[in-house]
Amino acid sequence: MSDYPSFVYLHEEGPREGIQIEPRQLTVAQKTGFIESLAETGLRQIDCVSFVNPKRVPSMADADEVARTLKRKPGVRYTGLWLNHQGLLRALSLPLDVVGSLRVTASELFSIRNTNRTIAQTLDEQQLWLETYREHGIELEWGYVMTAFGCSYQGHVPLEQVLTMVQHVVDLAAEFEQPLKGVYLCDTVGFATPRDIEERVGAVRERYPHLRIGLHLHDTRGTGMPNVYAALRMGVDEFDSSVAGLGGCPFASHKGAAGNVCTEDIVFMCHEMGIETGIDLEALIDCARSAEDLFGHPLPGKVMHAGSLARFRNAA
Amino acid sequence: MSDYPSFVYLHEEGPREGIQIEPRQLTVAQKTGFIESLAETGLRQIDCVSFVNPKRVPSMADADEVARTLKRKPGVRYTGLWLNHQGLLRALSLPLDVVGSLRVTASELFSIRNTNRTIAQTLDEQQLWLETYREHGIELEWGYVMTAFGCSYQGHVPLEQVLTMVQHVVDLAAEFEQPLKGVYLCDTVGFATPRDIEERVGAVRERYPHLRIGLHLHDTRGTGMPNVYAALRMGVDEFDSSVAGLGGCPFASHKGAAGNVCTEDIVFMCHEMGIETGIDLEALIDCARSAEDLFGHPLPGKVMHAGSLARFRNAA
Repeated sequence: MSDYPSFVYLHEEGPREGIQIEPRQLTVAQKTGFIESLAETGLRQIDCVSFVNPKRVPSMADADEVARTLKRKPGVRYTGLWLNHQGLLRALSLPLDVVGSLRVTASELFSIRNTNRTIAQTLDEQQLWLETYREHGIELEWGYVMTAFGCSYQGHVPLEQVLTMVQHVVDLAAEFEQPLKGVYLCDTVGFATPRDIEERVGAVRERYPHLRIGLHLHDTRGTGMPNVYAALRMGVDEFDSSVAGLGGCPFASHKGAAGNVCTEDIVFMCHEMGIETGIDLEALIDCARSAEDLFGHPLPGKVMHAGSLARFRNAA
Repeated sequence: MSDYPSFVYLHEEGPREGIQIEPRQLTVAQKTGFIESLAETGLRQIDCVSFVNPKRVPSMADADEVARTLKRKPGVRYTGLWLNHQGLLRALSLPLDVVGSLRVTASELFSIRNTNRTIAQTLDEQQLWLETYREHGIELEWGYVMTAFGCSYQGHVPLEQVLTMVQHVVDLAAEFEQPLKGVYLCDTVGFATPRDIEERVGAVRERYPHLRIGLHLHDTRGTGMPNVYAALRMGVDEFDSSVAGLGGCPFASHKGAAGNVCTEDIVFMCHEMGIETGIDLEALIDCARSAEDLFGHPLPGKVMHAGSLARFRNAA
């Protein structure tokens, strides 16, 4: 009836998602302190910074300093996000874990507006990324397909468009003789419902049974957690997520919040369902609560406010 | 692989849940205005008031006046909540729809602390309710089993305890020769995960295949929507829910919010998955937004802040 994984890997996106969108500017020490606390919870991968134009995202102007100042815990990968080759080179110049990845968009309109490149131009640039990985001995891991469930500019994104992008990624990896670990299907703008998860995870898995599938989900319209559950049922065991539900709209408290699906809510649901994550839920809840102090307003996570069920185990 | 219903019935709990717990006191006109707006969205049942001690819940002191003042729309049931026989008699004295129901609790400790009665005393009192229904020609519909997924005082509530309570309800109905339509399993304190939904809905359905099953779910720890989805997969088509996610903790904005699962988020997910609800999502979103003005702070609903996908249908 279901195919739950026994262990789920969560890639923490909270520091990057939060810092790039929250109106309150943090000091380098606040940023590194937050990341270091997260690293103590058992998380194995934490996205720390993004390499974007500081004129567009001023809070990321100190990304290099954050990466250099960070006290690294062994066994944790500290990553950054880049959207172009210059960003990749910047990541390589810093003490960060550069995860070999490709990044394409299923929607032409979104590709142009988000990265200023057509899909064809993006595919060309991915070759530069792959050459750079080869030069630096970095293994290719994931191909990210953005707007895989819909697009604010294009509207509906047909499944065939997504499968075409997966094929492009597979072809690029083959051309550079790099084995591809898997693809991340990204609900970049929060359109997906559980039926879409069933349809698209199912279709990619059927056509590419050797590829792992990861999901990057935004909880924009209340379907984030059902989407995680739908994926768990299908055996998906790798997700991007965001502590306290950080991310989304920076204006007016949590209004219109559209961060990644909340890390500790996923951890809570997994643990209660007998699925391990390697993460200390109580420590993660403490981090989520500290994020409210750090950013100065309530955040949309649920279990951080209600508390876990640990205190009720021996209630009677 | 799944057994989605084609139509889902939602019992709106928002006015009662919100009014009984929100710190801001509304006027009778504000309360009836809110209920009347909800009735225009296509909702078929709206819980309007609770008959509780006004010393404990001052905002319900005007429940009778609300019920008498309300402009009723044909085809909509306007209900109230009672926890004892006096409350039932009060409901019967008003122009409300008295839905024949039984109400038991699986946890002895919760029963005592919430209603000041043991389970045995509650079962005795249910006979008074049944006699009163018979006198007034009211058909029995639902048996509600509270704390069916766990209890803040008892902790874990074994499945057998839940099945015993369902059997009690079935026996009571048989004793009074009243056909029972179904049982509502209530996650009164927000403990349930999708695996619990699968287990307990499955067990009740297996033992009582003739009974309909409804769910009353609180989104206390982020599992409300996954629980709805798990139930939809099993063909469950009747839920309590709360516009804007109203309910839960009245303190400090939306912190620790633990209202019923959010009505318009369920409607959004259902419609996007091809399941009808008979509800106008856009009108319901307007009601949810008006509730933030009414109660004076952000509410936890998601789609009310992000908006539906209607405007993206013909985006390209």
